[in-house]
Amino acid sequence: MKVNRFMENPLVTPGDVSPYHKGFEVIGAFNAGVCRYNGQIIMLLRVAERPVSQESGKVRIPVVNIAGGQGELRIIELDMEDSRFDFSDPRVVKDVKKGKAAYLTSLSYLRIARSRDGRRFTVDESPFLYPELPEESFGIEDPRITQIGDVYYITYSAVSEKGVGVGLVSTRDFTAYTRHGLIFPPENKDVVIFPEKIGGKYYALHRPVPKDLGAPEIWIAESHNLLHWGNHRYLLGLREGCWDSKRIGGGAVPIKTEKGWLEIYHAADGNDRYCMGAVLLDLNDPSRVIARTKGPILEPETEYEREGFFGNVVFSCGVLLEGDQVYIYYGVADSSMACAQLSLKEIMDALVEI
Amino acid sequence: MKVNRFMENPLVTPGDVSPYHKGFEVIGAFNAGVCRYNGQIIMLLRVAERPVSQESGKVRIPVVNIAGGQGELRIIELDMEDSRFDFSDPRVVKDVKKGKAAYLTSLSYLRIARSRDGRRFTVDESPFLYPELPEESFGIEDPRITQIGDVYYITYSAVSEKGVGVGLVSTRDFTAYTRHGLIFPPENKDVVIFPEKIGGKYYALHRPVPKDLGAPEIWIAESHNLLHWGNHRYLLGLREGCWDSKRIGGGAVPIKTEKGWLEIYHAADGNDRYCMGAVLLDLNDPSRVIARTKGPILEPETEYEREGFFGNVVFSCGVLLEGDQVYIYYGVADSSMACAQLSLKEIMDALVEI
Repeated sequence: MKVNRFMENPLVTPGDVSPYHKGFEVIGAFNAGVCRYNGQIIMLLRVAERPVSQESGKVRIPVVNIAGGQGELRIIELDMEDSRFDFSDPRVVKDVKKGKAAYLTSLSYLRIARSRDGRRFTVDESPFLYPELPEESFGIEDPRITQIGDVYYITYSAVSEKGVGVGLVSTRDFTAYTRHGLIFPPENKDVVIFPEKIGGKYYALHRPVPKDLGAPEIWIAESHNLLHWGNHRYLLGLREGCWDSKRIGGGAVPIKTEKGWLEIYHAADGNDRYCMGAVLLDLNDPSRVIARTKGPILEPETEYEREGFFGNVVFSCGVLLEGDQVYIYYGVADSSMACAQLSLKEIMDALVEI
Repeated sequence: MKVNRFMENPLVTPGDVSPYHKGFEVIGAFNAGVCRYNGQIIMLLRVAERPVSQESGKVRIPVVNIAGGQGELRIIELDMEDSRFDFSDPRVVKDVKKGKAAYLTSLSYLRIARSRDGRRFTVDESPFLYPELPEESFGIEDPRITQIGDVYYITYSAVSEKGVGVGLVSTRDFTAYTRHGLIFPPENKDVVIFPEKIGGKYYALHRPVPKDLGAPEIWIAESHNLLHWGNHRYLLGLREGCWDSKRIGGGAVPIKTEKGWLEIYHAADGNDRYCMGAVLLDLNDPSRVIARTKGPILEPETEYEREGFFGNVVFSCGVLLEGDQVYIYYGVADSSMACAQLSLKEIMDALVEI
């Protein structure tokens, strides 16, 4: 498959974003939702910031303390000699005894980057969406934008010590927004809402992470109003020994084609190498999987994809379509944003019936 | 607190239930949802069956293979010498490499026990609800029954290799029923639906089990139609060093009192000792916790509670109210059913404001 990466890549890097918090540095501007709005191309960036470390041997954890709807930034300082914690993953601090994450090393929120040509972006000065709910005290991550009529519905990961759930806000102008709370409880991520009703119902892909039985795989749910979801069904799973053997989740908002709904999804293998693949779902019953690409359609190859805060990652939360051209906007190495241009026909041709 | 256990306890034991599957034995008749229907008291039992083992050193796992809505019972035979698996927990077979459950050792489904006096029960000859969905291939467990008008809504754990989610069916006569699919995706359990709308919305307690951040704690969700759920919020958590330090989940359908919604919940400590406690939620806003009992109101003390398939467990999925008397029906030792009579006033008096 021919992958035309933009010459301008990476399009936005942490250096292009001024920190919102005093005394903080931006370490990531990545995993953006993408849409067209009012003649602009918008990337809704996940911006990750952390305190500029002032003392070696310490890790300073940013948390938004939320009480009565008011957020207050708080720093938790951990000693790297503290044997209760494992600091080996740059993204999270693990509780050794519990064998699971206790804190994130950075605080994420959503911030808009705007462009006329989809290549040169200007980043807004302040956040579009910042933690406000108790369930968002560790941050807001990985947005997807679905336009339905003139309303843009934005799903995102809501992270707190209570777990990772999925929140929903809607906006008409990317200035004001309405909050709709969490639409999926923990542990869930990677929710993409289909852009129209199918047989009278809205559909969404979601990615539960069960603790005991099961694996991080893609499910599908239904709704009448986008706020309340039900009829959850298992949809698409891991493939042992393949590039999508460890975790898999929805990526871009599904693209309507004559042959079905084309979903460009992400997956990782046992080495945490993240690639993008594609799957085709039935046009009238998206709970039916028709075909899937065998290999990835996009994988980390360039230096900006292989090296960074968390390397060997390409991770798309949104694409734009123009004729046969699919513009895959994607986060690279949990650091920056890039774009690659692929042929829709070539992606469709790569699908293998299941 | 005075706890009057029924003289007749245990009310139903595995010996009282004829196996539904040929060549199987009933190992549990427990964790029943409870309601009044047509002059009867109904216990909707979770019945667990397993193949009568014929060869020592083997474990035979029952699974319902579901294709096109048709279920077919299949047996997976595992060698107890197989080092890929850990057989130490009588309830599950663990995948050693993945460090998590791979199979259940028994297959559960729901079966009705009927009584006139709430003490002497007759068990129906065949199941009321049997696995039919792919998401139920490992069984159906732990029902709760909420009566709204003349419809009984039954939530239950739907278990498969894909995870543990929560299904919903409704019935008017405990003969015919309507399936509504899974209302909560994995990993979730212990869903109790409130018996009436509050401020124009239905509410339910649920218990996600997140893999990474978070713990098995109680959340609350809203719905307009009981089928689709949203606005998930964290509600009630673990207490370190207490009887409810490891996992906590909804038990009985909430009881409406003048002072608030009284929820009788279950919890376990680090030794997997399960007790029942109580929490009071605001009458008009059940997402607000008012008070909670410090200690348990019911704990495993008798022999039938301490000894059994999985001992030291009292686990209620439903209570009946008669004046000041709360009849707590509860599973004991993952084996049988029992009932204890407590004073509502005494439970209310034991609540401590938060």
